[in-house]
Amino acid sequence: MTFSPPINSIQYLLRHAIDFRALQACPTHSDLSDELVLDILVGGAAFASDVLAPINRGGDENGATLKGGVVTTAPGFKEAYKAYTDAGWQGLSAPQSIGGHVSGGQELGGQELGGQELGGMGLPMVISVAVNEMLYGANMAFGLAPMLTGSAMNAIIAHASDELKKLYLPKMVTGEWSGGMNLTEPQAGSDLGALRTKATPNGDGSYALSGQKIFITWGDHDCTDNIVHLVLARLPDAPAGSRGISLFLAPKFLVDADGNPGERNGITAIGLEHKLGIHASPTCVMEFAGAKAWLVGPENRGLVCMFTMMNEARLFVGVQGVGIGERAFQTALAYAGERVQGRVAGAEPGAPISGHGDVRRMLMDMKSGIMGARAINLACAYALDMSEAAPDEEARTADRARQALLTPIAKAYGSDMGVAVTSTGVQIHGGMGFIEETGAAQHYRDARIAPIYEGTNGIQALDLAGRKVRRDGGAAMAALIGDLDVILADTKDISGNNGLDLGCNIRHLEAGLVAMKSATGMVIAMDEIDSHAAAVPYLDLCGHVISGALLIKSVVSGLKAKDPHAPAMQKLVWHHSLKYLAQAPAYLAQIKCAAAPVFAYPEDRLADL
Amino acid sequence: MTFSPPINSIQYLLRHAIDFRALQACPTHSDLSDELVLDILVGGAAFASDVLAPINRGGDENGATLKGGVVTTAPGFKEAYKAYTDAGWQGLSAPQSIGGHVSGGQELGGQELGGQELGGMGLPMVISVAVNEMLYGANMAFGLAPMLTGSAMNAIIAHASDELKKLYLPKMVTGEWSGGMNLTEPQAGSDLGALRTKATPNGDGSYALSGQKIFITWGDHDCTDNIVHLVLARLPDAPAGSRGISLFLAPKFLVDADGNPGERNGITAIGLEHKLGIHASPTCVMEFAGAKAWLVGPENRGLVCMFTMMNEARLFVGVQGVGIGERAFQTALAYAGERVQGRVAGAEPGAPISGHGDVRRMLMDMKSGIMGARAINLACAYALDMSEAAPDEEARTADRARQALLTPIAKAYGSDMGVAVTSTGVQIHGGMGFIEETGAAQHYRDARIAPIYEGTNGIQALDLAGRKVRRDGGAAMAALIGDLDVILADTKDISGNNGLDLGCNIRHLEAGLVAMKSATGMVIAMDEIDSHAAAVPYLDLCGHVISGALLIKSVVSGLKAKDPHAPAMQKLVWHHSLKYLAQAPAYLAQIKCAAAPVFAYPEDRLADL
Repeated sequence: MTFSPPINSIQYLLRHAIDFRALQACPTHSDLSDELVLDILVGGAAFASDVLAPINRGGDENGATLKGGVVTTAPGFKEAYKAYTDAGWQGLSAPQSIGGHVSGGQELGGQELGGQELGGMGLPMVISVAVNEMLYGANMAFGLAPMLTGSAMNAIIAHASDELKKLYLPKMVTGEWSGGMNLTEPQAGSDLGALRTKATPNGDGSYALSGQKIFITWGDHDCTDNIVHLVLARLPDAPAGSRGISLFLAPKFLVDADGNPGERNGITAIGLEHKLGIHASPTCVMEFAGAKAWLVGPENRGLVCMFTMMNEARLFVGVQGVGIGERAFQTALAYAGERVQGRVAGAEPGAPISGHGDVRRMLMDMKSGIMGARAINLACAYALDMSEAAPDEEARTADRARQALLTPIAKAYGSDMGVAVTSTGVQIHGGMGFIEETGAAQHYRDARIAPIYEGTNGIQALDLAGRKVRRDGGAAMAALIGDLDVILADTKDISGNNGLDLGCNIRHLEAGLVAMKSATGMVIAMDEIDSHAAAVPYLDLCGHVISGALLIKSVVSGLKAKDPHAPAMQKLVWHHSLKYLAQAPAYLAQIKCAAAPVFAYPEDRLADL
Repeated sequence: MTFSPPINSIQYLLRHAIDFRALQACPTHSDLSDELVLDILVGGAAFASDVLAPINRGGDENGATLKGGVVTTAPGFKEAYKAYTDAGWQGLSAPQSIGGHVSGGQELGGQELGGQELGGMGLPMVISVAVNEMLYGANMAFGLAPMLTGSAMNAIIAHASDELKKLYLPKMVTGEWSGGMNLTEPQAGSDLGALRTKATPNGDGSYALSGQKIFITWGDHDCTDNIVHLVLARLPDAPAGSRGISLFLAPKFLVDADGNPGERNGITAIGLEHKLGIHASPTCVMEFAGAKAWLVGPENRGLVCMFTMMNEARLFVGVQGVGIGERAFQTALAYAGERVQGRVAGAEPGAPISGHGDVRRMLMDMKSGIMGARAINLACAYALDMSEAAPDEEARTADRARQALLTPIAKAYGSDMGVAVTSTGVQIHGGMGFIEETGAAQHYRDARIAPIYEGTNGIQALDLAGRKVRRDGGAAMAALIGDLDVILADTKDISGNNGLDLGCNIRHLEAGLVAMKSATGMVIAMDEIDSHAAAVPYLDLCGHVISGALLIKSVVSGLKAKDPHAPAMQKLVWHHSLKYLAQAPAYLAQIKCAAAPVFAYPEDRLADL
């Protein structure tokens, strides 16, 4: 199964769905030329298609294995990982120097470190999202390793002492050492406040960690010389619940003053989960047996430190949904273009099934759905970038709010779209889709984790309705809706003035915006229990309208600029408006009634009828 | 994982969503007392939960295996199959005697066979659907074996010679011999007209079959002494395409005049597919090497003979979606009732996640979605039963058209619901849902085949839009819509007269019916290419409205009859109206535009942007 990363789609959306030119105009990104961007996209695409895509199927079949406390990755993964670090991909959005720009929205502290070379490329998040979408599409199981390293690195940059930074960051930026995020325990998944792992002071400034963590992605493996674990644990006498959790750094191998790994630390993978998908990504049960560790950030503020890092990981999960959806689309398109079955109306005998109206509809559902979710991901990344790079403070603040608002939507809408699209991919294959050999089934299995991890999509929806909309009285959402209103007005304008047929898009965007405004008003006015029940339908509604509006904006912009891809995009977005945007008003019924119908049926009767 | 078959739900729908009393009043079902029905449901439930459910997980883990041309089923399956036949379940809807009633809509021919005891129970299809839903929920992979035997039996009853009937039927009714349906070939899936397996006359009235068939469910196994294969093949000089295909019977072991199996026939399983799900159901590549066979039905009429049998199998696939959806619901409900995570608003600490609004919403989505699809399945089975049992010819004709209309909807809507609901089941489990040990992932994998086999859901939609709606100018659909209008009127009546709050249901049913009438008019008026592109959205729209209307009908009927389950059902249907029925109008946009947006985007550009 070949994979051709969608460079044209990504470039088109960078130009026309978001305002990439404005980012290039920011002083911190003065070196971000079109040529550089293209070079990076082409290079990422080549790495994805030539190195990662070929080992994806074998990774699924063989998986990672655990023997005697040692995790061995699937054939080819170690070599691919080395190629990844050799090419310098890990440093894509990492800061160029300690004290320099960092994509996670954090400045590196510590004056005495100022200017130390770190080797990161310091590229904006939109580029990182673009490249990572390709990597995830090629090989989602592989792509999780760099993602974890990036998250761990961001946490260290934002919260660790200068000493820890100096010791660990340089080899993480290169990818020589990977990172691990040790949060979940059996009783503490969505509710991290319930965790029990203990941290006992050793008296020398270090701590001893004891406890068990589960679902630790790439928690152990054979691809790097060291693994830098970030671990949530409780100090002695820490308050109960989420205010008593601290963040620690614990390497797999203890590191001497010169940064050389030596003695093995008390951290062992004692189990590997048997999962539905992403078999090549080792999901470990980790045992911390007095593991030596160092505090990161203030005592008892571990959850806060963690959550400042979560936004980027959440966005990347939405990117995974799109990446694997794109791969599933390409697999289905290739199959539909070769498979001959039944007479295609209006075609010569022997025409492939891609000519059947229903098959073509499914291909368009896939392609337009992916494009819509991709637009949201890029808009979210763009808001993050502008929240750091925009010249004036007011704009940065607004962009920070925009990014916070879009993150749960990007994560949930993108990952749900991944599941929907990979399911359609299976369907296009017919009986062959149910046979593992085609790979369509693997995409379907792999995609299913994305709505679950880094905060389930239910949690994302609660975050959207609660912290992002209700808490500020809908201010950030009103600003977003204002921008979407402008898109609608611009579209009406160009449609009327140029005779372009955007009437169908306009009608559905108009109706979608009415629904979104109405729903937002309801969500702000309702009580907390109602908002919990209404949250997911609200997020779905917003996802359809925002993706629809961004795509329509990209058509208007592309047509104005006479972009050669604009006419094709216009047709794709026509389908998107009918299939996705048109659904938005249908969620209002559930949002309006909220908790009442959900709780009306007595729980103890649910098993009876 | 325990499984409690949903007897109460099924009984409620039999009483209130369909008119089971009218069926009981038919002369051919005079012995169908409420007590008998309850006995059968209780017995089926016990068999499902005690015998089939416990071996479901092991069946998935171990799968069926092929060694030296011999298929061995997963541990416990052989014993379970024996228990199934010992209890007589295979004969549930089989005719009591040759010449007697048969559920497939066919009368047994051959006067000289009249009255020969066959041992079937001759029960109506609604009972068969009810019992089989439980079996599929307990163990979908197992349930396929009896389904295949039933289909093969129906084909033999309808089309085989008296000699073949006498020789094969008695041991198929008991389940001692199973049946196999050998249709698909690599180049002939949805398009059976492309098949190539050859049948050469042996000169003694028998034929020699040569060729290869793929995707043959339970094509070989170790549970019975013989397997009676029905095989589609071409006679020498047969016309090309679908008018040159004949149907043959070929047993695994040749049978002597007394019905004893002897010599092995030239039929061998040469491969087992590695599938996404239903691992315990052996999906075989079958080699026919000069296998001795006998013609069933007229020469070159094989596809017609086959299709008369297909309706029942299609309905059963919709039933599979509901069965496995119910199982996934119960698994999720049990997990949500035990798992403690996060503070539940308004509850004591330690309350399980089933109290969270978003989790409860997901449980209600599952339960109400399953109930709606179940109502369609039972309505379809009821139409089939009444098409045979109704006293007057006009009613039988109308019911035959109703059954033909509802079959593709039952198959597609039920199987799609199975996929959606099992996905929600995974989601409720959070991270544990992605781990195979919980079983939630197995339901998700198993359910995915149902939208594909027995005619993909795309094919079902083409069947609905084409043969079932356009061909008769919408007559059968108009009759159905007329019945739904009556439901709406009755609901308004009871709501107004009794002060019951059905206003929300009424509003959405009203809007849904407007959409369904409008969509039906469009589908009838459009050209064929448009109808192909609009078919799936049209089927989805119809599914939401019909299921919604049937559930509302059941509430009205139940409230009138003071059924103790009616108040709970009313609450469930409230949620159904908001979640499913309210979606119906959203499909109009796609149906209206039909093929234009689907084909606007040039196919050769699909890979470019």
